[in-house]
Amino acid sequence: MSEKGLTYRGAGVDISEQNKAIELFKSAVKSSYNQHVLSDVGSFGGLFDAAFAGYSHPVLVSSIDGVGTKTKIAHALGRYDGLGADIVNHCVNDILVQGAEPLFFLDYFAASKLSAQVAAQVVESAAHACKQNGCALIGGEIAEMPGVYAEGEIDIVGCIVGVVDKPNILPREVQPGDALVGLPSEGLHTNGYSLARKALFEVGGFDLHDSIGTLGETIGDALIRPHKSYLADLRPHLASGAIHALAHITGGGIEANLSRVIPAGLRAQIDFESWTPPPIFDLIRSAGSIPESEMRAAFNLGIGMIAVVSSPDPLLGSIPGSVQIGVAAAE
Amino acid sequence: MSEKGLTYRGAGVDISEQNKAIELFKSAVKSSYNQHVLSDVGSFGGLFDAAFAGYSHPVLVSSIDGVGTKTKIAHALGRYDGLGADIVNHCVNDILVQGAEPLFFLDYFAASKLSAQVAAQVVESAAHACKQNGCALIGGEIAEMPGVYAEGEIDIVGCIVGVVDKPNILPREVQPGDALVGLPSEGLHTNGYSLARKALFEVGGFDLHDSIGTLGETIGDALIRPHKSYLADLRPHLASGAIHALAHITGGGIEANLSRVIPAGLRAQIDFESWTPPPIFDLIRSAGSIPESEMRAAFNLGIGMIAVVSSPDPLLGSIPGSVQIGVAAAE
Repeated sequence: MSEKGLTYRGAGVDISEQNKAIELFKSAVKSSYNQHVLSDVGSFGGLFDAAFAGYSHPVLVSSIDGVGTKTKIAHALGRYDGLGADIVNHCVNDILVQGAEPLFFLDYFAASKLSAQVAAQVVESAAHACKQNGCALIGGEIAEMPGVYAEGEIDIVGCIVGVVDKPNILPREVQPGDALVGLPSEGLHTNGYSLARKALFEVGGFDLHDSIGTLGETIGDALIRPHKSYLADLRPHLASGAIHALAHITGGGIEANLSRVIPAGLRAQIDFESWTPPPIFDLIRSAGSIPESEMRAAFNLGIGMIAVVSSPDPLLGSIPGSVQIGVAAAE
Repeated sequence: MSEKGLTYRGAGVDISEQNKAIELFKSAVKSSYNQHVLSDVGSFGGLFDAAFAGYSHPVLVSSIDGVGTKTKIAHALGRYDGLGADIVNHCVNDILVQGAEPLFFLDYFAASKLSAQVAAQVVESAAHACKQNGCALIGGEIAEMPGVYAEGEIDIVGCIVGVVDKPNILPREVQPGDALVGLPSEGLHTNGYSLARKALFEVGGFDLHDSIGTLGETIGDALIRPHKSYLADLRPHLASGAIHALAHITGGGIEANLSRVIPAGLRAQIDFESWTPPPIFDLIRSAGSIPESEMRAAFNLGIGMIAVVSSPDPLLGSIPGSVQIGVAAAE
């Protein structure tokens, strides 16, 4: 047992920093629990009571995703407290488009070098977003991986499980003439950051801290704003059966994501002039001289979710900022 | 629309490479499906029929984890075809210790620069391991994150959901005098790679391709062997009710993981001389002059799972290589 022998800590993995992080976020995680959660923080697996009441035929809906290179904006700003909400709300929306209510969520946080403070900011943010969406942050993993991540970089992954009653699975039958109602995004959400960073900072020469008149805020503030959850806005309309399909506008943009729910024989006819994208998108476009086709394929352009409905009025009347952006037309 | 304008691909994100990867692994993923899977490859969320037959009170058990820096060994060897099995089997074991059968699994693959071939090797490996464990690879995400990952590096994360009937949740009551039966590991599994690499390659000066007499193989072969799933070996003993508790030996080693299931008033009394660790552990220890306490805290030392049982004979008689390594003694 040489005193000069190697230790795990000496190899770049500090278990005590992991434990410190867990202590910091433990109470926030517990606050997301509900009566379905049967396990405590730190058990091998999260236990969730699956004796669902009120479902004739429960179907579990699950999704896994990451926040992408938005982490680099957070790192540059030193503000990690929105990234947890980013990944939770992204995942909530991903299963919402199949009609599901979220049940529980698991998060993965990895870094080249672990900072308990940073990990705790992310996990606390995730826990609060879980609570707002009525789901439990039931499990997670913190990994310290020297040499795999670039110096100072982190990655954040989330996995969500929700439930929908089988007869209510979306999409339903989309009809010719159905209205496409766009729900406003709050910026880039979690897509297109590699392109946005290159356009704004490498080509355009802007700085994150630049205050831009058209934005009314700094570029950093516009870019770091968390992904929005559409659950609360859409829940009443799901219950009424009014919604034929939903498309979460993520990588690929409006057309690629809509095309996943518009059946053969119909096409989404979108009027890109029917809404005004938030000014951050204009800034990115002009800074990088980005072709409009690339903008449409990389960004949500101000529309974070699209509902396909026979009548747009109930949504337009109840969801602030929503706008009809097109129709499902016969080909 | 400048021809010189920036594109998503120009910013380091190549959607076509992602689509190529999906084409490559699609059929393997589909082969893991069973009658519970209601969605197809590429839907927003994975749909899994939750009308469980034969459960009086189903409880969902979930876990998320990564393979850690084992990816660096795979990268150096150019062999990625075990990493999917690594993460699936790791996750299967994590929920097995609470008595759960796996239902479905989701994978996340991220890289600094995406190679469709590498991603497909990992996902196909995960799909085959899922099939072997009777669970469906129901969802996944491929992320290309230039600048977040170090050049050529990847990360692999998995999330699993299983089910257990509430009366069968483990751990049950562990009794004084219960036997601790160790089940053999197949090497490091997915823990301790940062320490092992530092000891073997930086301090010891070994090369991955070195053939070592005591190993009977190259160091690379010994290090890349996938994590073992203990589901098939333990399933019969779970059904009989013979198992009081299970501990999956991951980060923290034998003592830290056992302590999570040994109740207050009892302690795990382990005879570290009662089995012979695989030779790779001796090589790591001597190469890095690693203190025994560090070895025990970082590695499984040849024991990948420990079953706590009143009578060891049924396990010892049916699971090759299993050995009684101690008892749960009164303090």
